[in-house]
Amino acid sequence: MTADGKIAFANRKFVPFGSGHDRENMMELRATADAVMAGARTLETPGTTMGPGGKKYQRLRLSRGLREYNLRVIVTGSGSMDLRADIFKHRFSPIIMLVSGSVPEKQLRLLRSVADEVKAFGDQEIDFPAALRWLREKWKVKRLLCEGGGALHGTMVRAGLIDELHLTICPKIFGGNTAPTFAEAGNDVRLADATPFKLNSSKRVGDELFVVFTRAKSSRRSWKRKRKRCGRNGKPADLPKRPEI
Amino acid sequence: MTADGKIAFANRKFVPFGSGHDRENMMELRATADAVMAGARTLETPGTTMGPGGKKYQRLRLSRGLREYNLRVIVTGSGSMDLRADIFKHRFSPIIMLVSGSVPEKQLRLLRSVADEVKAFGDQEIDFPAALRWLREKWKVKRLLCEGGGALHGTMVRAGLIDELHLTICPKIFGGNTAPTFAEAGNDVRLADATPFKLNSSKRVGDELFVVFTRAKSSRRSWKRKRKRCGRNGKPADLPKRPEI
Repeated sequence: MTADGKIAFANRKFVPFGSGHDRENMMELRATADAVMAGARTLETPGTTMGPGGKKYQRLRLSRGLREYNLRVIVTGSGSMDLRADIFKHRFSPIIMLVSGSVPEKQLRLLRSVADEVKAFGDQEIDFPAALRWLREKWKVKRLLCEGGGALHGTMVRAGLIDELHLTICPKIFGGNTAPTFAEAGNDVRLADATPFKLNSSKRVGDELFVVFTRAKSSRRSWKRKRKRCGRNGKPADLPKRPEI
Repeated sequence: MTADGKIAFANRKFVPFGSGHDRENMMELRATADAVMAGARTLETPGTTMGPGGKKYQRLRLSRGLREYNLRVIVTGSGSMDLRADIFKHRFSPIIMLVSGSVPEKQLRLLRSVADEVKAFGDQEIDFPAALRWLREKWKVKRLLCEGGGALHGTMVRAGLIDELHLTICPKIFGGNTAPTFAEAGNDVRLADATPFKLNSSKRVGDELFVVFTRAKSSRRSWKRKRKRCGRNGKPADLPKRPEI
């Protein structure tokens, strides 16, 4: 992402702005995962196949006891997807589609003509905890890499399903108030719900920062405890007042 | 900002989420600047006075040859501003307002009743290069700290007026597609225009990262040169194709 959290310009078209090292970092991450997942709009970008990234990474995968090619998971709650997308032209590993229960049978049949499996979870929106359980049980996915876009990231973070967050902070500012950011979806959050992470590591390569956050598992509960501790007569107290700025 | 570039939730109300160290870092920065500047909406947050942050910082300022209290600059292109805002209740240093030429005389009179000087630059939008030149000439502002909000940051970055970018990356994800980000304003940018910076330093304190970028002064020109070099017959060539992902 850019230093202001953007992953594209306002037109939402993907334009690469990371370095070669950033791409390598992504492929290194893929080489640790059983499956790679992304949203339909992200995957409609020409040239996107979600493959392991070449022989070097295939060998790395095998040496780690992983399958030579990662599974590929497409997320499309509404079932909309360009069936001519490049990903369907490369059949090196199964393509699994996660949809919601709202997708009509006719569209499901179309999706089944390009994907190896299409599975619905939830009613109007995908039930991700159930979907991830199913991926683990049926497809043996223990480590899943979610590569975007912002809406999917946001949904996954909100659902508390992200254990690690790998961010590349590039030395650019895109600006724009409709340019998509690293995490979107849902505007109804209170600070108490804002997903807390811990800074795991930060590494500089050239002018980019490679940052890893891990989920702070107990933070939400401890925030609740803090509110409760501050409160009187069962009513939550005002949170500590911020100092004058 | 959060790890996804947000500076507030979708309701745009400021809620503090940085650490005590983050606040100290901001005050340290103020203690290097002749003036501190922010947009009207940002300054309407209760408790915001844009002061130096206490005796410790006042002494630091004096030891550096700066005035004991920083000047305060309010930006409001349209001239809208809550005249009862806390900043006007603390008169330790001059308050200067930058507006555009579109503000009617009646509103200017109101603003002059609370500010020490109100000055218009540009027609419909503030002409920032001219405003900054004036601040330097009239008010001896050599180092100006711009503290937000996102729209002002975006405008300043676009205008190429930011020499240093100080970001605190907090271990939180807010998500939301209308939540304000560190840099907003303008959605019409091409990659060639995206302001390039160089990573100057990155320091971890607790779970926060304090990152400083500096403007890469020649990058825009070198990008143009690159396009030109790639082109044939005076027509810019396609930019290098990105590798398959």
